[in-house]
Amino acid sequence: MTHFADRLTAAIRTRGNPLCVGLDPRWESLPLSLRDKYGCDNLTAVANGVEEFCARVLDLVAPLVPVVKPQAAFFEACGPEGMAVLQRLLHRARSRGLLTILDGKRNDIASTAAAYADAAFAGSEIAGQVHPVWEADALTVNPYLGRDSIEPFLKSARRSGGGVFVLVRTSNPGAGLFQDLVVSEGSQSGRPLYQHVGAAVSAWSREHLGECGLGDVGAVTGATYPAEMALLRRQMPEVIFLVPGFGHQGGTAEDVRPAFRGDGSGAIVNSSRQILFPFAPDERDWEAKILAATKAAIAQLSPLCGA
Amino acid sequence: MTHFADRLTAAIRTRGNPLCVGLDPRWESLPLSLRDKYGCDNLTAVANGVEEFCARVLDLVAPLVPVVKPQAAFFEACGPEGMAVLQRLLHRARSRGLLTILDGKRNDIASTAAAYADAAFAGSEIAGQVHPVWEADALTVNPYLGRDSIEPFLKSARRSGGGVFVLVRTSNPGAGLFQDLVVSEGSQSGRPLYQHVGAAVSAWSREHLGECGLGDVGAVTGATYPAEMALLRRQMPEVIFLVPGFGHQGGTAEDVRPAFRGDGSGAIVNSSRQILFPFAPDERDWEAKILAATKAAIAQLSPLCGA
Repeated sequence: MTHFADRLTAAIRTRGNPLCVGLDPRWESLPLSLRDKYGCDNLTAVANGVEEFCARVLDLVAPLVPVVKPQAAFFEACGPEGMAVLQRLLHRARSRGLLTILDGKRNDIASTAAAYADAAFAGSEIAGQVHPVWEADALTVNPYLGRDSIEPFLKSARRSGGGVFVLVRTSNPGAGLFQDLVVSEGSQSGRPLYQHVGAAVSAWSREHLGECGLGDVGAVTGATYPAEMALLRRQMPEVIFLVPGFGHQGGTAEDVRPAFRGDGSGAIVNSSRQILFPFAPDERDWEAKILAATKAAIAQLSPLCGA
Repeated sequence: MTHFADRLTAAIRTRGNPLCVGLDPRWESLPLSLRDKYGCDNLTAVANGVEEFCARVLDLVAPLVPVVKPQAAFFEACGPEGMAVLQRLLHRARSRGLLTILDGKRNDIASTAAAYADAAFAGSEIAGQVHPVWEADALTVNPYLGRDSIEPFLKSARRSGGGVFVLVRTSNPGAGLFQDLVVSEGSQSGRPLYQHVGAAVSAWSREHLGECGLGDVGAVTGATYPAEMALLRRQMPEVIFLVPGFGHQGGTAEDVRPAFRGDGSGAIVNSSRQILFPFAPDERDWEAKILAATKAAIAQLSPLCGA
């Protein structure tokens, strides 16, 4: 099984850019033509509309970008049928040659975390038989529960060549409430909490490096905090950064530059709304707009990855 | 809409105990008779077996306990069909008069958190129409993303008389990696991170108190750390504690005592495996064993709540 970091690095090199397209399918932003076609009398209709939209997005971006990131919340919001759509879209993405990051920010105590982890990666093992669920290449996880809540994700990811992205410094305005608290103990004394989390991520990442020198435990670091990102990059050179907040949330290409290593490797930059919804509601050729938005983001980001 | 804390307090008083039955349906622990009946050739069969088991548990415990807590991970592990089972079981629990806490530990930035929150509580709003998804009475959430990631959960919960349980001090052995880091800034200087989270939970809780004097933002505090729990109880008198770790994880009735307020209100104690799986795999009358285990836990816990 090829190491996640090597697979991601190869995909970035092949496509020549580090753009991750976020699939955040908000019904009210879908093209009017699709909303009219499916209607929204019930969540199954909504889920079907979401599925057609996302499937067309996947087909458009698959030849251009290395990776996509479906946001679990928007599929869960459509109920069980939405989760079935998520499953089919992950399959479609893989079959189009895309790497997939399931953005679920999952977390729990060890034995329960293992259930989330197996669902995300190799599959649920029942009486010795493995049943695939999401078959994602990577999953986002939340570190608050500590060491033994992260380990089941690493274990499951490593069995299937997958990766884990741990929230370190998130992109939202209120992120600092806990993440910025200055800690007064340990070898990182005087540094904020998110750097302690970063140090732990770095240690987990070094346990299993790919041939490219990067580990399979990445860090989510928001584009909206470039100074913090630059600090983290120095602190954790072997960690892949997944950078949300580019585009709609206000992060620029210049803001995300510090996420990359000197050779341009080590980072992927997510854009969701700016790629998915660059059209007026009644735009007939909305696919052309998505294609243009994708190409515009690629033009901004490809110089950064040295591809 | 009656306030969540008032509904919970009334349910505890009516049933005379603060026991929350955790629904953590692990296939390999189900009665052999059910495993044989459904088989496990595919996840739909597994989900159906899980559904029958949990439905029978709900029917057994509904007359006895105030609240149940389905663990989302074990349903997700069965794929989309597992999520459909979760939805039906939540409905069944409500229809039997049980309060429900969906244990999803959800978290994300604001606009995405709102999608999780609406799914958990009132329902997803699509073009002005509200579509129920989980219809839980409460949801567990993870605080790492900070203020604006919690607010959508509060907003959505308050629209439907729901409650939010924030992870403060979890019950797992590795919980301390970040939760115990001593913070050197702010009014809580010199205290560990989990107490800072506790202070924030306390402030959110005080925004909206019920007639019983408790708020609708609760705290998850593990039974495996009784000293920390006692500290938190003094720090946040108006906060409902949801206490995992009783029973199988090692917490005793004496350990959970500090979670309660002086008058015996303000806490619910979760037990999952000790209630669900007290039988040998081939036990024919496994329902009698579950009933006995439930009654044994109630006998231990009812003196604590002053009911």
